[in-house]
Amino acid sequence: MNSGKIICVGLGPGDPDMMSVKADRLLRNARHVAYFRKRGHPGKARQLVNGMLHAEVTEYPMEYPLTTEIPHDDPRYVAQLSDFYLGWQARLTELARGEDVIVLCEGDPFFYGSFMHLYVRLQQEGVVPVEVLPGIPGMVGCWHATGMPMTWGDDVMSVLPATLADEPLRAHMARSDALVIMKVGRHLGRIRSLLTEQGKLDQAWLVINGTMSDEQVMPLRDAPERCPYFAIVIVHGNGRRPANDM
Amino acid sequence: MNSGKIICVGLGPGDPDMMSVKADRLLRNARHVAYFRKRGHPGKARQLVNGMLHAEVTEYPMEYPLTTEIPHDDPRYVAQLSDFYLGWQARLTELARGEDVIVLCEGDPFFYGSFMHLYVRLQQEGVVPVEVLPGIPGMVGCWHATGMPMTWGDDVMSVLPATLADEPLRAHMARSDALVIMKVGRHLGRIRSLLTEQGKLDQAWLVINGTMSDEQVMPLRDAPERCPYFAIVIVHGNGRRPANDM
Ligand SMILES: C[S@@+](CC[C@H](N)C(=O)[O-])C[C@H]1O[C@@H](n2cnc3c(N)ncnc32)[C@H](O)[C@@H]1O
Ligand SMILES: C[S@@+](CC[C@H](N)C(=O)[O-])C[C@H]1O[C@@H](n2cnc3c(N)ncnc32)[C@H](O)[C@@H]1O
Repeated sequence: MNSGKIICVGLGPGDPDMMSVKADRLLRNARHVAYFRKRGHPGKARQLVNGMLHAEVTEYPMEYPLTTEIPHDDPRYVAQLSDFYLGWQARLTELARGEDVIVLCEGDPFFYGSFMHLYVRLQQEGVVPVEVLPGIPGMVGCWHATGMPMTWGDDVMSVLPATLADEPLRAHMARSDALVIMKVGRHLGRIRSLLTEQGKLDQAWLVINGTMSDEQVMPLRDAPERCPYFAIVIVHGNGRRPANDM
Repeated sequence: MNSGKIICVGLGPGDPDMMSVKADRLLRNARHVAYFRKRGHPGKARQLVNGMLHAEVTEYPMEYPLTTEIPHDDPRYVAQLSDFYLGWQARLTELARGEDVIVLCEGDPFFYGSFMHLYVRLQQEGVVPVEVLPGIPGMVGCWHATGMPMTWGDDVMSVLPATLADEPLRAHMARSDALVIMKVGRHLGRIRSLLTEQGKLDQAWLVINGTMSDEQVMPLRDAPERCPYFAIVIVHGNGRRPANDM
C-alpha cells in the first residue's frame, strides 16, 4: 500500500519570491526531491531551489540519456527516451510507497514541462497518487522583466516554440498581436529574420534567464548572435486602450 | 517627497495557496488596499483575499463608472472611463506620499489586467514609484483544474478574447493546437458554435471560477446556455510525445 504521493511542483520563472506559498512550504519540508537534468549540468530546476531544501533531503537527479549522436526523430532516440521515462516511473513509484516525493519543474509543469511525460504514464498506471502544483510560467516572468504590460482588451497572444518550421511561425507572427517565442536557443537568428520580415523586429524583446540573478533583457535588434536555451522573445500587444493612454 | 510606493499584486487564479510568497507577505502587512469593482458587487479581487488582510487596513474600492446605458465604443464611455482612471491616479499618488498602497489584481496584472491603464499613466507621470508583482494567470489555474497537460513539444497555444469577431476567432481556432478563450461570459453560445464548426467541440472544456471554492469544470458540450464572466474555455494541445505515450 502506498502511503506517499508524487507531487510535481511548479517553481515559477526563477525568483524564489515568485514561488507559490504551497510550493515554498512543500520544498522546505521535502525529504525526497527529484529533477530532470542533462548529464554534466546542475539542472536548471535544481538551481532554482538552491538554499531552500531541508538538511536531510535525498536528491534524485533524473539524467536524460545522452543524445548528441542520435537525431531526435530517430527511432533509437525515441526508444531511449521511452526507457528513461519507464525507469523513473518505476523508481519514483517505489519511493512513494514510503513518503512523498517532490519533482521539481521550472515555470508551470503543464506548460511544455518534461514531467508531463511521466505524469501521463503514472496516471495511466494508477498505482500512486500524483499531484501537480501550478507555477508562474517562465513567459510571465519574462514579460514582467520588460516592465511593460503584455496584453490589452482584444489582443490575441500566441505562444510559439522556436523549434517550429518557418511557415507556421510566419503565419502566427502575422496574425497575432502579442507573441511569446519559447525555446529560442540556436533558433535566435531565424526568429530574428522572420520577425524582421513581418515588420515586428522593433517591437521585439529578448529575455534571458528572466527573474533569475543573471537576468538579461534587451531589444531583440541589439541581441548577440547566440543565446542560451533559457531565453524567450516577447512582442507586446497594444490592444484597445482608453483614448488618451496613447 | 514620496515615501511610499504603489504596488500592484497579482493574486493568481483564486486558490490562496497559489499566491506568490511575496504577494502573501505584502497582503498580510498592507495598510492601504485598493481594488477595482463594479458598483453593487464585492469585487472578485477583493473576494480572493478574504480573511488575509490586516486588522488595521483601509480599503479603497475603485468603482467603475456605471455603463449599462452607454455602449463601450461610445466616446462618452471612453471619456467617463478616462476620468475614472485620472481620478484614481491622483488619489493613489496622494496616498503613496505617506505609505505603500497595494492594488489587488486577479491572475497576472500584465495579462489583460485593468491596472495596466493606471500603470501607464503613473509611469508617464513619474511622481510615485510603481511596482507590479506577477501572479499565476487565471488560465493556468483553469488548465490545472482540468487535470490535463496544456502544451507539449511543438504545440502553438493561442489566447483569444471571446469579445473578438467571428472571423479572427475562426482563423486562430483553425491554426493553433492549444486554445485559451477568455472573457467567455455572454459569448459562450457563439464560442461553442465556432469550435463545433472547427471540429474542436469534443476537445473543449469550460472552467468557471477555476481554483476558487465554487470551481466548476465540464466538457464544453455539457455546458449550460449561460456562464458567468469568470470563465475560460480550454482546448489542450496534443504535441509531439514519445511514441508509447499514445
Ligand atoms: C521546456 S520549456 C519549459 C517551460 C516551463 N514549464 C514554463 O512554464 O515556462 C523551456 C523553455 O522555457 C522558456 N523559459 C522558461 N523559464 C524561463 C525564464 N525564466 N527565462 C527565459 N526563458 C524561460 C525558455 O524559452 C526555455 O527554452
Ligand atoms: C480582464 S481578464 C483578467 C485576466 C487576469 N489578469 C489573468 O491573469 O487571468 C478577466 C478574464 O479572466 C478569466 N479568468 C481569470 N481568472 C479566472 C479563473 N480563476 N477562472 C476562470 N476564468 C478566469 C476570465 O475569462 C475573465 O473573463
